[in-house]
Amino acid sequence: MLSERLTQYSELTEHKLGELLSESEHAPILQESMAYSVFSGGKRVRPALCMAACELCGGTPEDALLAACALEMIHTYSLIHDDLPAMDNDDMRRGKPSNHKAFGEANAILAGDGLLSLAFYALSQCPQADALAAISKGAFEMVLGQSLDINSGGDESLLRQLQDYKTGALFRAAVGAGAACAGAIGEQREALTRFANAYGLLFQITDDILDFEGDASVLGKTVGKDAEEGKTTFVTIYGLDQAKEFAKQYAHEAREAVLQTGGDAAFFCELISYTLTRKS
Amino acid sequence: MLSERLTQYSELTEHKLGELLSESEHAPILQESMAYSVFSGGKRVRPALCMAACELCGGTPEDALLAACALEMIHTYSLIHDDLPAMDNDDMRRGKPSNHKAFGEANAILAGDGLLSLAFYALSQCPQADALAAISKGAFEMVLGQSLDINSGGDESLLRQLQDYKTGALFRAAVGAGAACAGAIGEQREALTRFANAYGLLFQITDDILDFEGDASVLGKTVGKDAEEGKTTFVTIYGLDQAKEFAKQYAHEAREAVLQTGGDAAFFCELISYTLTRKS
Repeated sequence: MLSERLTQYSELTEHKLGELLSESEHAPILQESMAYSVFSGGKRVRPALCMAACELCGGTPEDALLAACALEMIHTYSLIHDDLPAMDNDDMRRGKPSNHKAFGEANAILAGDGLLSLAFYALSQCPQADALAAISKGAFEMVLGQSLDINSGGDESLLRQLQDYKTGALFRAAVGAGAACAGAIGEQREALTRFANAYGLLFQITDDILDFEGDASVLGKTVGKDAEEGKTTFVTIYGLDQAKEFAKQYAHEAREAVLQTGGDAAFFCELISYTLTRKS
Repeated sequence: MLSERLTQYSELTEHKLGELLSESEHAPILQESMAYSVFSGGKRVRPALCMAACELCGGTPEDALLAACALEMIHTYSLIHDDLPAMDNDDMRRGKPSNHKAFGEANAILAGDGLLSLAFYALSQCPQADALAAISKGAFEMVLGQSLDINSGGDESLLRQLQDYKTGALFRAAVGAGAACAGAIGEQREALTRFANAYGLLFQITDDILDFEGDASVLGKTVGKDAEEGKTTFVTIYGLDQAKEFAKQYAHEAREAVLQTGGDAAFFCELISYTLTRKS
């Protein structure tokens, strides 16, 4: 069921993103550079969470489609700007040259700015004002997290708060906006927010574990690239075993929270299990 | 009267911007870098246009205050990103080191991203959905214009369209959002949009003239820095006299349009005269 619904959500998202990006046809290079990163094999996790939250609260996936696309555009802009030489200076993203490698730095900055602006233009066509509140808050908190990250000097005590902003904020935005698009308020939405908080940490920890294990298997090393580069992750601080233990705990918390919504939580439970054991 | 109302608008804007920027107190460097550029002596033209449009359509300046602040944050983010080394590479802005010179490139990118996100978070508290539509469209068109600019190779035939996006779009957004905050639709709002189209060109041309004359008086040269750097402006293409003639024409068009609103156009007429003869 997981893959069926993920496919449905993903197809809706791809189609609508294509429509929304055609708004930029007057500036071909902007359009091309935005599309390059938007259609580069992203898993569309945030749109799926948004549409699934909307369904759980009694709406249809289509009710949340504009919000879902806005979230994906915001996620994509953040990756483009994160990869810039002045930030993480990553030459590759999802197996392709990163945006600034393909289009140059100036166009990459504008591709990010364009996607962030276009996301809110898409939201202006969404009748639920609460979706805008959830998503703009998430977008801003993500920048807060990024700023804490680059200025914290690897302070370990900040790791959870930092990841709560960097990754958690857009997950909270996704379920909050999805619930808003179904007209949900109160307890159901609060439970979904608790789910997003736990799921965000689960997602980040499993990402850190995958990075570590990927490096270890490829390089035959006992420390990953993150540790070598001085990055602070759940694995570099707590070690692999403890990180895996945390992942299980957050998966449990996420499951408990989503069951408290009182809605059909099957999709979310499968997604949690999938994320806990994911290989990519 | 012009300066009285400008002072009133400006005071409202400064106060509210201070409140809005306090949202970022969890990340001190982000807050500092955003505030550095937001409070650096900007003339608050876009907020003034927004609040004046709201008043012309029967609202109060306060009705349009969130939209006005959003516009100023968006304008400021665009200046921060424009100044980056990969873009215009400007070390100074309004007599101070530009944002990336003061805080480094990574923090400057985030200050821009943060202001753009925070602008829409402020708008999520504004009850008029149409203000979001006007402002997000303007924000996106501004990026379109910037992209055309850096990729057009100085194509003269694109100058008007490019400036219509780069400068005009946020002026259109300002009056459109202001009118929306007063609940105005139809003819009054359309006349304000025509005003913004003409006023945007007037503003840009007088900017080009000031740049040219500033260079000429300081450097004792007959061509300005823009021409030397290969920039395409109204002065480099048409010469100083023709550019001044265009400025008068657009001032006339702007005045005609604002008179067609049927509202109290005195403030706008004074602003047009002031812009036509401005010395800074």
